[in-house]
Amino acid sequence: MRATVMYAAGDVRVETVPDARLTEATDVLVTVTRAAICGSDLWPYKSMEPSETGRRMGHEFIGVVEEVGVDVRTMKAGDLVISPFLWSDGTCVFCREGLQPSCLHGGRYGADGVDGGQGEAVRVPQADGTLVVLPVERDDALMPSLLALTDVMATGHHAALGANVGRGKAVAVVGDGAVGLCGVLAASRLGAEQIIMLGRHPERIAIAREFGATDVVSERGDEAIERVRELTDGLGVDSALECVGLEQSTVTALRSVRPGGAVGRVGVPQEDSIPEGESTFFDNVTIGGGPAPARAYMEELLRDVLDGRIEPGRVFDRVGYLDDVPDGYRAMNDREAIKVMIEL
Amino acid sequence: MRATVMYAAGDVRVETVPDARLTEATDVLVTVTRAAICGSDLWPYKSMEPSETGRRMGHEFIGVVEEVGVDVRTMKAGDLVISPFLWSDGTCVFCREGLQPSCLHGGRYGADGVDGGQGEAVRVPQADGTLVVLPVERDDALMPSLLALTDVMATGHHAALGANVGRGKAVAVVGDGAVGLCGVLAASRLGAEQIIMLGRHPERIAIAREFGATDVVSERGDEAIERVRELTDGLGVDSALECVGLEQSTVTALRSVRPGGAVGRVGVPQEDSIPEGESTFFDNVTIGGGPAPARAYMEELLRDVLDGRIEPGRVFDRVGYLDDVPDGYRAMNDREAIKVMIEL
Repeated sequence: MRATVMYAAGDVRVETVPDARLTEATDVLVTVTRAAICGSDLWPYKSMEPSETGRRMGHEFIGVVEEVGVDVRTMKAGDLVISPFLWSDGTCVFCREGLQPSCLHGGRYGADGVDGGQGEAVRVPQADGTLVVLPVERDDALMPSLLALTDVMATGHHAALGANVGRGKAVAVVGDGAVGLCGVLAASRLGAEQIIMLGRHPERIAIAREFGATDVVSERGDEAIERVRELTDGLGVDSALECVGLEQSTVTALRSVRPGGAVGRVGVPQEDSIPEGESTFFDNVTIGGGPAPARAYMEELLRDVLDGRIEPGRVFDRVGYLDDVPDGYRAMNDREAIKVMIEL
Repeated sequence: MRATVMYAAGDVRVETVPDARLTEATDVLVTVTRAAICGSDLWPYKSMEPSETGRRMGHEFIGVVEEVGVDVRTMKAGDLVISPFLWSDGTCVFCREGLQPSCLHGGRYGADGVDGGQGEAVRVPQADGTLVVLPVERDDALMPSLLALTDVMATGHHAALGANVGRGKAVAVVGDGAVGLCGVLAASRLGAEQIIMLGRHPERIAIAREFGATDVVSERGDEAIERVRELTDGLGVDSALECVGLEQSTVTALRSVRPGGAVGRVGVPQEDSIPEGESTFFDNVTIGGGPAPARAYMEELLRDVLDGRIEPGRVFDRVGYLDDVPDGYRAMNDREAIKVMIEL
């Protein structure tokens, strides 16, 4: 089969790899119908050390069940299924608490002999705990919004929850990538009254406005923080969503919140220490977030997509086929595209 | 009047200073009857740069109202009053939310022309928003436990809330000072099932046991973290209370919690960055805490002290008079005493 392999920073190839096939009784074999490139795929795209064997890529996909392991109970061949960006058993102590990214028997796609999502097929381990059967056809018009539930919309929602977003709150969203935009949508869905988007790209701002942003701050660094304060009676926002992961964006998020506020981190941190340790302490700022339990949020967000209440698929502004994946990485890295959907 | 002044690291003196007196209509003049030395007073005691004018010390006290400003409504001369460790107006947006340490018109004792608590008298600004009238006599046997409400017990309670302590939770307390011990008591009061005290001093451990600690870990660093995991089925605790403020203790707290857990920071941070930024991210660990809103907790904790349900005053293991303050600093800094109460 054909799948995406990264060999070094900037070196992404679509090539022939061994066919995906069942190995465990709890596996399901899925033929991918839609996949996506993630902002987090850009970190290795910027920095990966050259590797001879390469690294299989992709963790956002929807597909059709081809074959099920003998222990699989909740799906059958022919079902259209959606996967969260991590696989998990659904039964361990963390899965039962809705924290599937910490599943004791779970893992990542594209690692340890598990296929990546940017390819023709995927062996999905722990299928009963991981996949959700979709009640639509494979080419349904909702496909972009459903695909967004595999990661970015769940991650935006997680950022909002980590930042204690709720009815009437003032929120700042740091990061105008697909996750940041979904953070705006999530904050709006949770009833935030004021949603300040930090960004400067007209197309991204347009989507943010559509998703519920009430204000846009185009300044950066200290000036951005200053503007956020001006927009919030000098106090700062109740909640800030950190959707980048760099030190500068983290500082902006942490310093945009008012005393007693909270920051939800969902950008994969590129540093091992969190800045502003003293100011956050003296202001009683809470720092939450992490990898989103997309599986835990799936049913709730799926209902809203199916009912047309949210349309997170608006973040996909480019569609291609499997051979277009390398150019999709380039386009997203060059900020030419917000997010790329792959049709198979 | 006589009061405590610090001139440099290790140089604490009790000397004559200008008499405290009313300056604002919202002030109250309090004659101090009990004061305490705080663990946070030891940070300048260890590191203060020499100063010719010195720094007035103390922020934990109980006293008798001597004189009230014309705008004061809730107390009168002769009342016995307790102060939280910060003064606050009680009416600003943050005070109304119960976050008095961020009061827009509040401040610290011993700064900006306000007296310190380790002296014969204190001008208390914003008295209506700050002080609480006590329904006991000045020499009541409950005095140590009441005095503990000015800071350490409120701070332990805040650490527990910041770490999401609740019924049935497993908790680790890092720091065996008075705040850490009060953190044990607070966790127990909030219904924690397992409370692991990290400490090695027999007298402190004895109080921790009395306060509800179920386990004691005497190892340090990585070994302490290992022991906490062993005591919690290999997972880590739900909640860790950081009651020191050093980098090492913060690492211990952050790495003792299980995925999805929380750390409540109340030790004044001695570094401006928070370690373990990546591991806390990938484990979805929440970091909360800061300076406790002791005023917000006062009524609730006061009720429990008056009813005999908690006895946080057990942390005072030494009592002295005003002239004993310098030796009290030395004794606490040498870890000869846990906490010193001053009778006036």
